[in-house]
Amino acid sequence: MEKQDLLYEGKAKKVYATKDPNFIIMHYKDDTAAYNGIKRAQIKNKGRINSAIAAILFERLHQEGIPTHFIRRINEEEHLCKKLDIIKLEVIVRNRVAGSMAKRLNLKEGTRLPNTVYELCYKDDDLGDPLINDHHAVALAIASYDDVKTINKMAEKINRVLTDFFDSAGIILINMKVEFGKTSDGKIVLADEISPDSSRLWDKETMEILDKDRFRRDLGRVAESYQEILDRINKLC
Amino acid sequence: MEKQDLLYEGKAKKVYATKDPNFIIMHYKDDTAAYNGIKRAQIKNKGRINSAIAAILFERLHQEGIPTHFIRRINEEEHLCKKLDIIKLEVIVRNRVAGSMAKRLNLKEGTRLPNTVYELCYKDDDLGDPLINDHHAVALAIASYDDVKTINKMAEKINRVLTDFFDSAGIILINMKVEFGKTSDGKIVLADEISPDSSRLWDKETMEILDKDRFRRDLGRVAESYQEILDRINKLC
Repeated sequence: MEKQDLLYEGKAKKVYATKDPNFIIMHYKDDTAAYNGIKRAQIKNKGRINSAIAAILFERLHQEGIPTHFIRRINEEEHLCKKLDIIKLEVIVRNRVAGSMAKRLNLKEGTRLPNTVYELCYKDDDLGDPLINDHHAVALAIASYDDVKTINKMAEKINRVLTDFFDSAGIILINMKVEFGKTSDGKIVLADEISPDSSRLWDKETMEILDKDRFRRDLGRVAESYQEILDRINKLC
Repeated sequence: MEKQDLLYEGKAKKVYATKDPNFIIMHYKDDTAAYNGIKRAQIKNKGRINSAIAAILFERLHQEGIPTHFIRRINEEEHLCKKLDIIKLEVIVRNRVAGSMAKRLNLKEGTRLPNTVYELCYKDDDLGDPLINDHHAVALAIASYDDVKTINKMAEKINRVLTDFFDSAGIILINMKVEFGKTSDGKIVLADEISPDSSRLWDKETMEILDKDRFRRDLGRVAESYQEILDRINKLC
């Protein structure tokens, strides 16, 4: 499969068409951005590392029967994926308090949640990806009530599988953002990526942050922490 | 029933104990406040008018089998009510876009919504009553999943009954905020008030605003508009 037109360029990824309208190539960039694009940098090797991490996670999910857009890695920084109609929702799955939830509700980061908290956000940069609920999603014609129900069920299963997987690698899955899309036949599958860019991952023993918060908060050793995650989950495969 | 200790004073209401621990007296004040208490004023007769409006609405809901805390008016500005454990949620029911929803999602005020939008907010002045969802409510120990389901079903029924009732008075129920509490035997009932302070009500023909937005936006004739609502629904009783 060869890259054709650039279809989309985001902060951390590029998406290219292929000759087959059912497939795209997703390129993982070294670029990173935080605080709605205000803070930006290049992190050497991030593209390669996140591409490898995401591939392992997608394959783990496939083993558990969870459909994703991922087909295979075609080189160190690129995945061949199914082309989807992206659903303009971000689903944030939270096992512990962190990030925006800590701020909005004045809760301590790292607090274990008694129940998994799922948040729907409207993917809209101009609005700052606001928190919404199923009723807003339907009113805005982003998704149907049935779509949201399917997405929530999938997010629950993804969280269960990946929480266990990371736990085996000595890592706590604090939270993660997942996105979904529809294949040409209308089936909802996991889209985008799961990586230390889109999730919070802490060392189980030391509680050291291993994810993008190292960049957000200038903690240093960003690529090294991402590589640490990759090394640990690689050993499980 | 005579008033005993003042249990609580809010921006627009005072709540007094009675000699019977199962009952309280709710006093509707003329005071009003907006923008989280930054803008304040006294509106002459508002307490009397809102007390009358709320009583009519509670009685209409009772006719439809919806339980509320309201027992009876004991004078022009006061209701005898059941004492409840208040559930720290505000449920906003939206039939058309207005207020915070218009701002957060950049939508035009007055737009008819294809589906009723229900929002849960965490009643916490310091946090600015943030939008949450059922998972947050459970994680914060505000309510159980079953409680939230019950509350949502009740809000749906209340909205159906009051939308029709106001429509008969030539008024559009744009949105409303409802609150709930539990009686001593654990039953969830409608609490607080429903009035032009806690809902948006527009004239069906002229689309004139008849509610608290007249105060928020300095449109004048606040008490007159509230009285207009009372006069119109009084005719339906």
